[in-house]
Amino acid sequence: MASPKIILYTNHNCPWAHRAHIALKELGLVYEEVIIDLTKPREPWYLDVNPRGLVPSLSYNGTIITESAIVAQFLADAHPSHLVPPSGSVDGALQRAQIAFFVDTFLSKVQPHVHASLRASTAAEIDAAADALVAAVETELEPLLAAWKGPGPFFGGSDRLTLAEVLTGSFLLRILHYSDARIGLLSARLPALLERTPRFKRWAEATVQQESVNFIWDALKSANAIKAKLGITR
Amino acid sequence: MASPKIILYTNHNCPWAHRAHIALKELGLVYEEVIIDLTKPREPWYLDVNPRGLVPSLSYNGTIITESAIVAQFLADAHPSHLVPPSGSVDGALQRAQIAFFVDTFLSKVQPHVHASLRASTAAEIDAAADALVAAVETELEPLLAAWKGPGPFFGGSDRLTLAEVLTGSFLLRILHYSDARIGLLSARLPALLERTPRFKRWAEATVQQESVNFIWDALKSANAIKAKLGITR
Repeated sequence: MASPKIILYTNHNCPWAHRAHIALKELGLVYEEVIIDLTKPREPWYLDVNPRGLVPSLSYNGTIITESAIVAQFLADAHPSHLVPPSGSVDGALQRAQIAFFVDTFLSKVQPHVHASLRASTAAEIDAAADALVAAVETELEPLLAAWKGPGPFFGGSDRLTLAEVLTGSFLLRILHYSDARIGLLSARLPALLERTPRFKRWAEATVQQESVNFIWDALKSANAIKAKLGITR
Repeated sequence: MASPKIILYTNHNCPWAHRAHIALKELGLVYEEVIIDLTKPREPWYLDVNPRGLVPSLSYNGTIITESAIVAQFLADAHPSHLVPPSGSVDGALQRAQIAFFVDTFLSKVQPHVHASLRASTAAEIDAAADALVAAVETELEPLLAAWKGPGPFFGGSDRLTLAEVLTGSFLLRILHYSDARIGLLSARLPALLERTPRFKRWAEATVQQESVNFIWDALKSANAIKAKLGITR
């Protein structure tokens, strides 16, 4: 297959757009990057690319694909790799379904507690959000992680990154870094609490150590962007 | 491939569970049906099947798959058919992405106005929800429908149902039937308003006429179930 012409419209502070970077890097695809300033109203030319005005948008040989999960899945489907098995067999379909369920569980049960912490106005509320986050990891994710068969740290026990980490890695970076004292968006108690969820801790730490996950990451910049957006002064 | 042993845990009044019925019927798969009473707390045995207590749950040769979109996608992936092209080529990946974007647009931009109508307490609010629904169809869906290349009424101009209709058909049934005077969950003005969105009207009407979409449908029963659940007395 000839190398596709890829343009990624993105912003490095957006965890959704970040998913496309992980997928592109993991697949070894060459791409041109166009940074969209999310602090200003979108310019008309960008609304022509993506009428919703969101990032990421992917131009793939001239066809526009939007919505981060759809972009990442598209890249993984179009370029068969270790990220996800092909559809079309029961085993492949089942693994795809299990990855989708795992990501859905992370986003619907765990991630909301990060948002609760960002919305919090007192130290007690920030601590409560961390407690709730770790409780959700314990109840919802640890049983799924316990069922992994392989010895590796990634989805299912794989020793290479999968689509599950492509779709969650940018959020894991924030969970592991936003409790830093210089940032303070998550409770300083969170690292100690995560000792209670060793499978999650191993998975999250292995994921954020991958270059494909962290190569555009700047903890302070991303934290400052979210603080500015939400008017957080702490 | 030997016929799989399939058990579907479901409720015919739930539009989410309904997606699994459409997929199974369209794929010609034989399945055993177990009806879950959603008006009572879930029994412990069902929480063992699906800890979230939701429908549908699919037992496929003994493996449990839950969450309606994941169940429908799994069935379509495991049994290659007209519903969705295989992953693994750029064209297949792109069509899968376009179906996902279409379904996401329907659910995130159009469907919320049905919920607004269900929550409404005055006739004016019910009419306003219908206006907003048709405005969203006009702005968000008609441009996508206008880009369809084939002559058929289904996704992309296909003459056979696709995964796009599997994932939206149960909601289209409600949009087209709940404005009936005997039901009154949507404005009686809705059918006239939908004349303004002819592409959507053609697509929705063709979809709900398919046996795979309507074979478990009972408009009054489904309306009464939602009225009982939400305490709607009109």
